[in-house]
Amino acid sequence: DFIYSLENDVKPSLGTSDEALNEFIERGIISWGHTRDLLERGLMFVKQARSPETSNRLCLLLEGAPTAGTSALAAYLAKNSDFPFVKVITSSEMVGYTESSKCLRIKKMFDDAYRSELSCIFMNDLEQLMGYSPIGPRYQSIVLDAMYSLLSSSPPKGRKLLVICTSKRREVLEELGLLPMFTAVLRVPYIREVEDVRMVLEESQAMSSAEVDEVCRHITHGEVFVGVKKLLGLLDTMRVMKDVDTQERVAAFCNLLEDEGVYKPSA
Amino acid sequence: DFIYSLENDVKPSLGTSDEALNEFIERGIISWGHTRDLLERGLMFVKQARSPETSNRLCLLLEGAPTAGTSALAAYLAKNSDFPFVKVITSSEMVGYTESSKCLRIKKMFDDAYRSELSCIFMNDLEQLMGYSPIGPRYQSIVLDAMYSLLSSSPPKGRKLLVICTSKRREVLEELGLLPMFTAVLRVPYIREVEDVRMVLEESQAMSSAEVDEVCRHITHGEVFVGVKKLLGLLDTMRVMKDVDTQERVAAFCNLLEDEGVYKPSA
Amino acid sequence: DFIYSLENDVKPSLGTSDEALNEFIERGIISWGHTRDLLERGLMFVKQARSPETSNRLCLLLEGAPTAGTSALAAYLAKNSDFPFVKVITSSEMVGYTESSKCLRIKKMFDDAYRSELSCIFMNDLEQLMGYSPIGPRYQSIVLDAMYSLLSSSPPKGRKLLVICTSKRREVLEELGLLPMFTAVLRVPYIREVEDVRMVLEESQAMSSAEVDEVCRHITHGEVFVGVKKLLGLLDTMRVMKDVDTQERVAAFCNLLEDEGVYKPSA
Amino acid sequence: DFIYSLENDVKPSLGTSDEALNEFIERGIISWGHTRDLLERGLMFVKQARSPETSNRLCLLLEGAPTAGTSALAAYLAKNSDFPFVKVITSSEMVGYTESSKCLRIKKMFDDAYRSELSCIFMNDLEQLMGYSPIGPRYQSIVLDAMYSLLSSSPPKGRKLLVICTSKRREVLEELGLLPMFTAVLRVPYIREVEDVRMVLEESQAMSSAEVDEVCRHITHGEVFVGVKKLLGLLDTMRVMKDVDTQERVAAFCNLLEDEGVYKPSA
Amino acid sequence: DFIYSLENDVKPSLGTSDEALNEFIERGIISWGHTRDLLERGLMFVKQARSPETSNRLCLLLEGAPTAGTSALAAYLAKNSDFPFVKVITSSEMVGYTESSKCLRIKKMFDDAYRSELSCIFMNDLEQLMGYSPIGPRYQSIVLDAMYSLLSSSPPKGRKLLVICTSKRREVLEELGLLPMFTAVLRVPYIREVEDVRMVLEESQAMSSAEVDEVCRHITHGEVFVGVKKLLGLLDTMRVMKDVDTQERVAAFCNLLEDEGVYKPSA
Amino acid sequence: DFIYSLENDVKPSLGTSDEALNEFIERGIISWGHTRDLLERGLMFVKQARSPETSNRLCLLLEGAPTAGTSALAAYLAKNSDFPFVKVITSSEMVGYTESSKCLRIKKMFDDAYRSELSCIFMNDLEQLMGYSPIGPRYQSIVLDAMYSLLSSSPPKGRKLLVICTSKRREVLEELGLLPMFTAVLRVPYIREVEDVRMVLEESQAMSSAEVDEVCRHITHGEVFVGVKKLLGLLDTMRVMKDVDTQERVAAFCNLLEDEGVYKPSA
Ligand SMILES: Nc1ncnc2c1ncn2[C@@H]1O[C@H](COP(=O)(O)OP(=O)(O)OP(=O)(O)O)[C@@H](O)[C@H]1O
Ligand SMILES: Nc1ncnc2c1ncn2[C@@H]1O[C@H](COP(=O)(O)OP(=O)(O)OP(=O)(O)O)[C@@H](O)[C@H]1O
Ligand SMILES: Nc1ncnc2c1ncn2[C@@H]1O[C@H](COP(=O)(O)OP(=O)(O)OP(=O)(O)O)[C@@H](O)[C@H]1O
Ligand SMILES: Nc1ncnc2c1ncn2[C@@H]1O[C@H](COP(=O)(O)OP(=O)(O)OP(=O)(O)O)[C@@H](O)[C@H]1O
Ligand SMILES: Nc1ncnc2c1ncn2[C@@H]1O[C@H](COP(=O)(O)OP(=O)(O)OP(=O)(O)O)[C@@H](O)[C@H]1O
Ligand SMILES: Nc1ncnc2c1ncn2[C@@H]1O[C@H](COP(=O)(O)OP(=O)(O)OP(=O)(O)O)[C@@H](O)[C@H]1O
Ligand SMILES: [Mg+2]
Ligand SMILES: [Mg+2]
Ligand SMILES: [Mg+2]
Ligand SMILES: [Mg+2]
Ligand SMILES: [Mg+2]
Ligand SMILES: [Mg+2]
Repeated sequence: DFIYSLENDVKPSLGTSDEALNEFIERGIISWGHTRDLLERGLMFVKQARSPETSNRLCLLLEGAPTAGTSALAAYLAKNSDFPFVKVITSSEMVGYTESSKCLRIKKMFDDAYRSELSCIFMNDLEQLMGYSPIGPRYQSIVLDAMYSLLSSSPPKGRKLLVICTSKRREVLEELGLLPMFTAVLRVPYIREVEDVRMVLEESQAMSSAEVDEVCRHITHGEVFVGVKKLLGLLDTMRVMKDVDTQERVAAFCNLLEDEGVYKPSA
Repeated sequence: DFIYSLENDVKPSLGTSDEALNEFIERGIISWGHTRDLLERGLMFVKQARSPETSNRLCLLLEGAPTAGTSALAAYLAKNSDFPFVKVITSSEMVGYTESSKCLRIKKMFDDAYRSELSCIFMNDLEQLMGYSPIGPRYQSIVLDAMYSLLSSSPPKGRKLLVICTSKRREVLEELGLLPMFTAVLRVPYIREVEDVRMVLEESQAMSSAEVDEVCRHITHGEVFVGVKKLLGLLDTMRVMKDVDTQERVAAFCNLLEDEGVYKPSA
Repeated sequence: DFIYSLENDVKPSLGTSDEALNEFIERGIISWGHTRDLLERGLMFVKQARSPETSNRLCLLLEGAPTAGTSALAAYLAKNSDFPFVKVITSSEMVGYTESSKCLRIKKMFDDAYRSELSCIFMNDLEQLMGYSPIGPRYQSIVLDAMYSLLSSSPPKGRKLLVICTSKRREVLEELGLLPMFTAVLRVPYIREVEDVRMVLEESQAMSSAEVDEVCRHITHGEVFVGVKKLLGLLDTMRVMKDVDTQERVAAFCNLLEDEGVYKPSA
Repeated sequence: DFIYSLENDVKPSLGTSDEALNEFIERGIISWGHTRDLLERGLMFVKQARSPETSNRLCLLLEGAPTAGTSALAAYLAKNSDFPFVKVITSSEMVGYTESSKCLRIKKMFDDAYRSELSCIFMNDLEQLMGYSPIGPRYQSIVLDAMYSLLSSSPPKGRKLLVICTSKRREVLEELGLLPMFTAVLRVPYIREVEDVRMVLEESQAMSSAEVDEVCRHITHGEVFVGVKKLLGLLDTMRVMKDVDTQERVAAFCNLLEDEGVYKPSA
Repeated sequence: DFIYSLENDVKPSLGTSDEALNEFIERGIISWGHTRDLLERGLMFVKQARSPETSNRLCLLLEGAPTAGTSALAAYLAKNSDFPFVKVITSSEMVGYTESSKCLRIKKMFDDAYRSELSCIFMNDLEQLMGYSPIGPRYQSIVLDAMYSLLSSSPPKGRKLLVICTSKRREVLEELGLLPMFTAVLRVPYIREVEDVRMVLEESQAMSSAEVDEVCRHITHGEVFVGVKKLLGLLDTMRVMKDVDTQERVAAFCNLLEDEGVYKPSA
Repeated sequence: DFIYSLENDVKPSLGTSDEALNEFIERGIISWGHTRDLLERGLMFVKQARSPETSNRLCLLLEGAPTAGTSALAAYLAKNSDFPFVKVITSSEMVGYTESSKCLRIKKMFDDAYRSELSCIFMNDLEQLMGYSPIGPRYQSIVLDAMYSLLSSSPPKGRKLLVICTSKRREVLEELGLLPMFTAVLRVPYIREVEDVRMVLEESQAMSSAEVDEVCRHITHGEVFVGVKKLLGLLDTMRVMKDVDTQERVAAFCNLLEDEGVYKPSA
């Protein structure tokens, strides 16, 4: 079942930030495995961030391997926080920025947020924001500094701030000493169970029920380990492969899974 | 018992620096374990710094692991130094600064201080001020130089200066040769004893007495190792978890402690 | 048989991008080994990129060792995508650019593309675009960042974008974490089989049939491993070596193959 | 006995450089251990520098671990050189300078000195002047170059120049190839002997004679290893600890020595 | 016999590029060992570059250890290419250029060349052009990038380009991935044979025939390994050593060979 | 005997370069050990550089450990070259220069030289000119490039250039590939023999003959290894130690030799 599409219907538009968030949830939220749980825990922290009895700053990190669906889930939380002020920070709007203009832009977001009583900032892919790359390794240390400072300083008295971040490289953030700045860290897992694959296949509507059954029967003879985004991408191939019969489609899809290394038949 | 809230009542406002200091002590000072001792030793050094018989510069370092409460204790000392001139230097006000504007800003603080007969400078998180990060490792060497020079040079004749600093990475300061610049280094420990946990739980008023008892009984079967700030943060979760019964709340909290790795049941 | 020359005849000119693409296919596409297969799979992804049912962004990577013919095949795909908007990004037009002007130029290409309903961007030699070189190693991290951001962000609603990239150093892109950004990665192989060598020799028309036979007979006694571009380059030597007899020409060419290390006689 | 305070009385003021030098000798020169010897050897080199029969440039280095008293002794020598032109170069007046403005400032000092017949330049903490820090390690190479050039080039004909430098990291200067530039290198040791501790304690007048005796008796049961500046700093604590009895003061001081790691009781 | 001086007589002047080329051939081309062969192969590639049937870009690399005579031979080829447009790129005309002005200058050379139907570019010492030095190692990566781009991009349709480069560090170019850009790589060897030494000695006319015989007889008892430029340089010493008898001159020269490490007598 | 003082008498002044050279020979040239030999060989190369029959560029390197007297000998050669144009390049005139202004200055020297028929350039301490320091290691690569280019490019037709350089770190120049640029490399040794020590002591006139005898007798019982500049520096101490008797002076000097590590008594 689709969590997002459901709730999405009843949400009033929040303007451009809302659109920016929607881009991350292009294909809705399919409720496989622990997705619902994870969102529940996330929403509990959102609630905690709103509460007047708690600390006036709460930082949440969602982290998962590439294509795990981390950004979509984080965007979902920000979208559903019901905070009147929501801002999205991504690296794609800062292509070609110098380190310090990046810092100033990020700082401005926080300063704007501080003017609202309840505000939520969504920062996607922290390590990418700081220009991290593993060869060297390299990263923009003054952007890291800015994050460090902004995540650790409190909003002015009477303001409450919720920061939701994502990361694909938890170990990097750990090494950089950023993890203790977060109130909580939620892990977004890969899909491992055949039943979860089935749910994604079904909800995606890229294959017929019979085909889905066939695929699922096939993959019980091995191990699946795939991000939901990756899996949805592979299903796109099925959408254009139309003029062949079911069996061929199933075989093609199973081959694709194997070629892409996300399914390994047992020896 | 609350040290800070108590004494706080009788202090006249010292202006903006005082506010800046207060931000670090958002949740007061709970007198667990050696807190009182540590503050006493700290205040003795404050007294020594004031004395006309002693060296005209005294540098104090409080160091502890992240969330140990280091900044709060250091801010408490600066606040209670009763020095007419108190200045706070944190990295969050210098986001996006170039290395040299950082230096100039810090130097200006010292120059201002030199104009007062008795002045106190609070520098939070030295390694963060110099943009230290462990991957590389990196740091802004001219900021380090500035610290080095400013910490080691005396105020003009007849002026007395107290510098209170904090750090989360004592070993870095040691390697950089900054430690010998300090008259004294005070270590802020993590909470280890059940009785200390109990005191924080009680003073925080996030749980009922019965719940606190229950939690404490539970954790005697293992090891606790947690910073006071972290512990207070976890208690915030209890504040919003309201519509469940005591037992569930206790279980939830004990799970939280274990999930967050701050409590390890014995094998 | 020539794939390119064939289809080329019936294509209307698409302007300057088309010319830029043609430069990469200077010598047509000779249909040796799996070339046809590879192009078919490639064109299937092109079709998938066009389909309104699929994700609105599809990134394809062709990767092969130097001289494998990677750029020609990728250019062929871009040329035959039939996308109304096609843009070519190569490093040779950005000689002497600063890192950030490079970023701006690349970003502009994407921004232009976003204005078209269906657009295709061809980026040749990703690692060279980011100034990668293995001694150090070095690369321009803000260009990498730009790629990272641009490859991972979606075009505006209702637009579809196809990005075709080439690389000679797949392992570098892998280490840099760029591979997960691609929907598919196609490997362009070297020529190993005598029959494939024969086809290239024949189609190139640099030698007589008899000479080709002779060469092929000779090289069955060893191993060939050569990129199609390299092989065509060696054949150029035959084109100017005119006033000697067949046997000498064959011997000269076989020596050349061996000298250049692309043919190893078995011990 | 106090060397400095004695001779200080009869010296006429030499202007601002003299004041700058005095700041380094805040607490006089207590004549413990080989202090007198070391100063005698230093003054002999000063005399040699003045002599018209010798080389027209003499560079002297005093080096010792942090808090050994190196700067005070070097300043003492510069002060007592009786050279009409004395200039002090320290890093604290160059906080936030760029590398090249540092160089220009230092060069200007030398150029000014060259205009005087007899001139003395005091450069405190060479490695700090060049922004040396051990993590990396880092240092400002053009400042190092400047030192290198200025220390090795002769003043104009008929001028004589004495340069007195200090260092806390002799091994760094050695590795950088700076040591051969010095005519002589004098080592400033730590205090090791109980009798030397006694002399510092007595001269400091921070404790009563009885207390000093008590402390000295106590520390014979272990090893002392401390810089004179550190020891004087610890004695400051005694100056403010007034309302307790002798025994407690002695115990407190002995504890302090042990806590600070400068006294180790034998096992 | 002198190859260069011979052919040089009949060549019309080609203007300044010709002069620049002549500077590299200060002492003519002595035809020792495989020199003639090597030049023949080189000229065959020059012919191939001119041919309308071949690829429109041909890059040739001559590489040899320092003093092997690499630059002279490459200049000889460029000079004798009979291409109407010849340009020389050396690092000595770009002393003090920034990296990017270097790039622009090199690019301009190529752009100019593209305007000619047949053009030849001579780039001396590639690794020096990119500021390579082995300590670090260091090199100017954007110059490397420029080379990479310019060597790999084709001239406009209908233009033919011949690039002749030299290098003293083939292994560096290999590691940087520049070698596959070359159509052919020719190695310039050191002199090893006594007969080759004899030819150089004779042609140089720095010694009498008798002296040459004597030297050659002497060095048969060991191993020679020397670049032709080095050998000619050592012979210069003979030119000024005039007022001593033959035997002394021979002995002096043999000693010189041994001292300079280019001749090793067998043990 | 004094080589320099002798010949110096009969030389006419050559202007400011001559003065600059004289500064390097402050204390004349004492003819110990192989000094005369070394100068003869050097002057033979000077003669070779002048000869119209030889290559139009000759680069000479004198290299020796610190204080070996390398600069004085090189300056002596430049001074006695009798070249009408002599220029001195040292790092002390370029303190605080940026890398590229350094390059421009050096290049200008060469350009000026090229205007003279016969010109000589003296570059002191190559590795210092390029800002070399062993920690890192670091050096200014564009200055290195400039040296590389300038040392390897020929003066215009009809001009002759002699470059005399010194170095204290031959191994660095070797690693950087600068050594093959030199026509010859002359090593300046340390003093090892007692007789050489005696000659320096005598010529220096810092001690009486009896004292010299005494010192020489003493040091036969061990090993001496010292640069002539260092030794002359130590003798300066003797010049100011006047009011003590011979025996004390001898003992003092022998101690000094031992303390400074230049004399090691045999075990
Ligand atoms: N349960 C789910 N969790 C997350 N995403 C889901 C889920 N169901 C469907 N999706 C869809 O999967 C896609 C996940 O993409 P998303 O960008 O979040 O992945 P990601 O892990 O951030 O990838 P990347 O490695 O590129 O950052 C979105 O289009 C989202 O709408
Ligand atoms: N005994 C105590 N010591 C320190 N802090 C206390 C104590 N009791 C309560 N607190 C509260 O705990 C919090 C400690 O936060 P603080 O910023 O000092 O921690 P920190 O160790 O500096 O954390 P960080 O790693 O983020 O720098 C403050 O809100 C303070 O009011
Ligand atoms: N089957 C084929 N595949 C690829 N190229 C072919 C094929 N047949 C002929 N060619 C020709 O071979 C040449 C391949 O050159 P291309 O630039 O694509 O190689 P490359 O691997 O990208 O080389 P480089 O390492 O220089 O980037 C082109 O001129 C192309 O026209
Ligand atoms: N014998 C002595 N030698 C040196 N300093 C002495 C002596 N007796 C007393 N002092 C006092 O001790 C202090 C030594 O401080 P100084 O700054 O010289 O130490 P330092 O080794 O340079 O320290 P740092 O490591 O901070 O550079 C001065 O205040 C000086 O007046
Ligand atoms: N057969 C030959 N091959 C090359 N050079 C020769 C030959 N015979 C004579 N020469 C002369 O030898 C000299 C070779 O110098 P060249 O600059 O080419 O050497 P190189 O190897 O490039 O040296 P470097 O290491 O300085 O770059 C030239 O003056 C040239 O005229
Ligand atoms: N035989 C000699 N050789 C060299 N220098 C001599 C000799 N005799 C006397 N001298 C004197 O010794 C001094 C040598 O100093 P010089 O600057 O040449 O040494 P250096 O090895 O270059 O030292 P540095 O390591 O500082 O560069 C000069 O003052 C020179 O006049
Ligand atoms: Mg993501
Ligand atoms: Mg803190
Ligand atoms: Mg290619
Ligand atoms: Mg000091
Ligand atoms: Mg050359
Ligand atoms: Mg020298």
